[in-house]
Amino acid sequence: MEFVQVADVKLNDPTWSRQFALVRDIVLPYMWEILNDRIEHAEKSHCIENFKVAAGKSADKYYGVVFLDTDLYKWIEAVSYCLTVERNAELEMLCDYAIDLIKDAQEPDGYLNTYYTSIAPEKRWSNLMEGHELYCAGHLIEAAVAYFKATGKDTLLKISRKFADLIDRTFGKDKRRGYPGHPEIELALIRLYEVSQDKKYLNLAGYFLNERGVGENIFVEECNKEDHAYIFPEMAHFKADYFQSQAPVREQCCASGHAVRGMYLYSAMADYARLTDDQDLAAACEKIYENTITRQMYVTGGVGAAKLGERFTSDFDLPADSAYAETCASIGLMLFSSRMWLLNGKKTNYDIWEQALYNTVLSGIGRDGHHFFYVNPLEVVPQTIAHNPTLSHVKTQRQKWFSVACCPPNLARILTSIPGYIYALDGDCLYILSHLGSSFNKGGFYVNLVRKSDEYTLTIEGEPKKIFLRLPENSNMVSDQIKDYKDGYFIIQHTGGKQEYSYSLIPKVRILRAHPSVSAAAGKLCVQRGETVYCAEQVDNAKPLSALRLPADAVFSEENVDWLDENMPILKTVGYSESEKNWDQTLYSSQSCVYESRVITLIPYSQWGNRGENEMRVWLTEK
Amino acid sequence: MEFVQVADVKLNDPTWSRQFALVRDIVLPYMWEILNDRIEHAEKSHCIENFKVAAGKSADKYYGVVFLDTDLYKWIEAVSYCLTVERNAELEMLCDYAIDLIKDAQEPDGYLNTYYTSIAPEKRWSNLMEGHELYCAGHLIEAAVAYFKATGKDTLLKISRKFADLIDRTFGKDKRRGYPGHPEIELALIRLYEVSQDKKYLNLAGYFLNERGVGENIFVEECNKEDHAYIFPEMAHFKADYFQSQAPVREQCCASGHAVRGMYLYSAMADYARLTDDQDLAAACEKIYENTITRQMYVTGGVGAAKLGERFTSDFDLPADSAYAETCASIGLMLFSSRMWLLNGKKTNYDIWEQALYNTVLSGIGRDGHHFFYVNPLEVVPQTIAHNPTLSHVKTQRQKWFSVACCPPNLARILTSIPGYIYALDGDCLYILSHLGSSFNKGGFYVNLVRKSDEYTLTIEGEPKKIFLRLPENSNMVSDQIKDYKDGYFIIQHTGGKQEYSYSLIPKVRILRAHPSVSAAAGKLCVQRGETVYCAEQVDNAKPLSALRLPADAVFSEENVDWLDENMPILKTVGYSESEKNWDQTLYSSQSCVYESRVITLIPYSQWGNRGENEMRVWLTEK
Repeated sequence: MEFVQVADVKLNDPTWSRQFALVRDIVLPYMWEILNDRIEHAEKSHCIENFKVAAGKSADKYYGVVFLDTDLYKWIEAVSYCLTVERNAELEMLCDYAIDLIKDAQEPDGYLNTYYTSIAPEKRWSNLMEGHELYCAGHLIEAAVAYFKATGKDTLLKISRKFADLIDRTFGKDKRRGYPGHPEIELALIRLYEVSQDKKYLNLAGYFLNERGVGENIFVEECNKEDHAYIFPEMAHFKADYFQSQAPVREQCCASGHAVRGMYLYSAMADYARLTDDQDLAAACEKIYENTITRQMYVTGGVGAAKLGERFTSDFDLPADSAYAETCASIGLMLFSSRMWLLNGKKTNYDIWEQALYNTVLSGIGRDGHHFFYVNPLEVVPQTIAHNPTLSHVKTQRQKWFSVACCPPNLARILTSIPGYIYALDGDCLYILSHLGSSFNKGGFYVNLVRKSDEYTLTIEGEPKKIFLRLPENSNMVSDQIKDYKDGYFIIQHTGGKQEYSYSLIPKVRILRAHPSVSAAAGKLCVQRGETVYCAEQVDNAKPLSALRLPADAVFSEENVDWLDENMPILKTVGYSESEKNWDQTLYSSQSCVYESRVITLIPYSQWGNRGENEMRVWLTEK
Repeated sequence: MEFVQVADVKLNDPTWSRQFALVRDIVLPYMWEILNDRIEHAEKSHCIENFKVAAGKSADKYYGVVFLDTDLYKWIEAVSYCLTVERNAELEMLCDYAIDLIKDAQEPDGYLNTYYTSIAPEKRWSNLMEGHELYCAGHLIEAAVAYFKATGKDTLLKISRKFADLIDRTFGKDKRRGYPGHPEIELALIRLYEVSQDKKYLNLAGYFLNERGVGENIFVEECNKEDHAYIFPEMAHFKADYFQSQAPVREQCCASGHAVRGMYLYSAMADYARLTDDQDLAAACEKIYENTITRQMYVTGGVGAAKLGERFTSDFDLPADSAYAETCASIGLMLFSSRMWLLNGKKTNYDIWEQALYNTVLSGIGRDGHHFFYVNPLEVVPQTIAHNPTLSHVKTQRQKWFSVACCPPNLARILTSIPGYIYALDGDCLYILSHLGSSFNKGGFYVNLVRKSDEYTLTIEGEPKKIFLRLPENSNMVSDQIKDYKDGYFIIQHTGGKQEYSYSLIPKVRILRAHPSVSAAAGKLCVQRGETVYCAEQVDNAKPLSALRLPADAVFSEENVDWLDENMPILKTVGYSESEKNWDQTLYSSQSCVYESRVITLIPYSQWGNRGENEMRVWLTEK
């Protein structure tokens, strides 16, 4: 079972082609300017300059967080996915320029990390807990693999293999003991194995996974050393579970700790379990995934509820206003979900993949392509956020850049890699996992999925195949031709030659409740259309949004609006608003509620905050 | 208008006599042991030892927060209120011992602060923002006044006057400019003025009030000095409003900043406005008080919503789970409310006074008298608190002591001073403000209020008086004899001689909603009986409490239980619970709700957490 790769798929989808173009034409050029510190009034990046510093080509000093190199690596990875669709001389030239810089910053033995090379070369590998060297190496490898696949150029791939080979000579049984404070190297090494077919990379990934949480915790050992100095002093209080090193990975059964770290680790575990047919590891992945999606995930596909530690907390703890729900963590959930699909083929993994993509991930990027969310709350009252320091992490508007800027380039690479998650092949089976207009031609087998609004035409040409069309959780699939259905998939027996199939995929609008143990959603409802979660914004509804009341049997009308895409209707219904009439100078009262009838207008959650600062709310009080 | 002082009133009330005895017999002796570091497994105090260190009688070093002296001062003040009721040789001996220590720790010029004397004598008055010297002086003065009134002994009063005189020589117009980072000295100086009738203390209080927020902020000046070092580094980020110094006090119109600082400052403002007939200042007090109680107060009488800065945030921001609502802040609200009553005579001030006392303040102390709450949340899910660092300030169980231990001794002094807030005299008018069984005999005028459950007999003997009985907000007053009613008071024309009046004061049970802008209470109800707010605890109701549904028209039965006092019935009604039946491995669903009928049991909020760790919730979801 493997995905038809991003390099092979041509996207032509009314929603996603716009998004793809936004990233290629606006976001990536903007980010290049950011990485070169040429955007005014944005947080300083210094990323490119750091490479020059490490290469000895700049007299400046290293600036920024320890893992800043990854911003460039993720940018190259995203550019690579764009280049697979269409070569673009300008973007490619910028990549080659960047790759030359990276090459110059690499030390003779292969080591590559501008922070350590510039600031503390003698401290190499001394602080695996916080140093992020292996994390940076992972993103380097992912960029190199993507750029090689896109262009066939192997300079960056050679750089990354040289570094990977150094890591392999350094860490392992009978070598130095270690595993990364921030997982990422593991899944990257597996990508490197897949492109190189060199098993040592798979084995090294396995070493890092298998060593984690076994015996004495290496992070504790590091911190106990006499000359240890914290890079992030707040980490002094973090326990092993923050780093997912509280137990051997096969014994872990809940999502815990830093959410991005967790998602990247679990993704690699799923990859490794599949590639090595490791049933125990697969079982651990199943448990962790189940815990994530049935106990610790926001309805928007956000994960990691708490600001401090950007972390998972406990089952059902999903506060709306103080939510962290980092954009990168939901990108991680997409990675984990797609790998779980490769592992077990369950279509529900893709329901979660879409839940994360269409809501928290898409929310991460503004419609102008120049502004980004890092934190993704489900409830925003600007006045409260301005005055309550408990909510200081929540931004009411997308930001130009961040001092820790993991999210924007991560958004760029996930959004440009979407075509690589649509189709999968497994012998004589083809899976169509997400219904995005697109086509591919692989080994003489041709697939073209043409989408017009909710209508799809699927053209297949080539050898006989059994074709599985995933039924999204909250849509109806209607077709005169496709009737066979099993376990979440409609099935077509393609008997060879050229065939055309048409179907409609009609998003349902439904009203959701949360599990009775979710305190933050008690007595509240939220609205979903297809995979898209909706929210109320003050600009469409009077404030306070806390006064809105939604009937559980509300029926919604759909309406297209100028400022949103064609496939993003807003929803309207008649609900109520609690009147403030008798509340003048009164904070608590036993008076009965006076409700006023009111049109409630909802927009896709991913689009909130695009019309200025205002209140926003996903969970509306039921009436 | 003045209160009949605590020294003159004998308490004999079924509820409060138990509480008073608990403080006198259990809490105060326990605290003495704590202050002497003789309680195992409690946070170290070191308070008494610090006085020995400052007096040169111990070779130990100062330990603890900078304002630790106040723990002893508040303890002496509380003991003093006990001694006014009944002299107690043992407690008095301990006080005299402590006073000798205090005397020895005083510097020759009158300066008294064990932190500065021991650690940094040269830094005296250099950091008014954080140093708490004037705050400590204030609590010293309050203790001295109380002990003098209780025993007639003036050693401590002389010590405190010597210090106050030094402060008066130091600060003022044409002297050093200054005002305290933590208000308290102002209201204490007014007490000292009242007992000494020396106007310089009133004027000094006035100076501190009038200088505050005028011209360049002295805290900014301090922090800009070259040799400035923060005592609390986190304060580097705090703005002037944290210290209520963002504007001249007469121009302030909202409760802002650190809640205890605010309450103490506003209390002193109300005192000073009354004593100097300052209408502008009185108007500012009215605005701030109105903002506090109609926009920023929890239904439990808690104030100061945010953990960081222990502070007021903004209107309607009253989160239940992350509430700070410090015990001391509600004590401060009682001080402010009682002074607002002296200022304007509005009976509603006493509704708030009781709302704070019967709920958040009383919650601060465990039934065993050995455990205390500092933070008073309105919703507790122990598993969430254990894992979500956003809630790390919330304790699910009362603590033995705290490293910052302002609350327990503050509880002791407020609870023992209750008798001093019951009655007020204003010429030929007597006000009965809180209906607690008690008596006094002042200048030949005798009042005896006998309470049996909800039945009261009021005996009056002496000259003619107009007697105002406050009607509590949520009770019915029934009497054959008392019919005259105006502006919240029932009125008796006592024509002289001895008369007896009887009345019933029957608490109503009512269901409250919060203002539609209170996001945390949207679609939720809470239950109040008389002045007592109720909550659900898991031990009486199945968990999760988030699944409970309360009908808005619920009718409650009252029931006495062994573990609570006679006047603290629990409440029961039939409500619902959202069934978890169909929610196995499901986090969000469009299934309709299945409700199960269920008895909902509520207990007084002040009594939660006395039966082990469990869920608690004040605001229940409406059905």
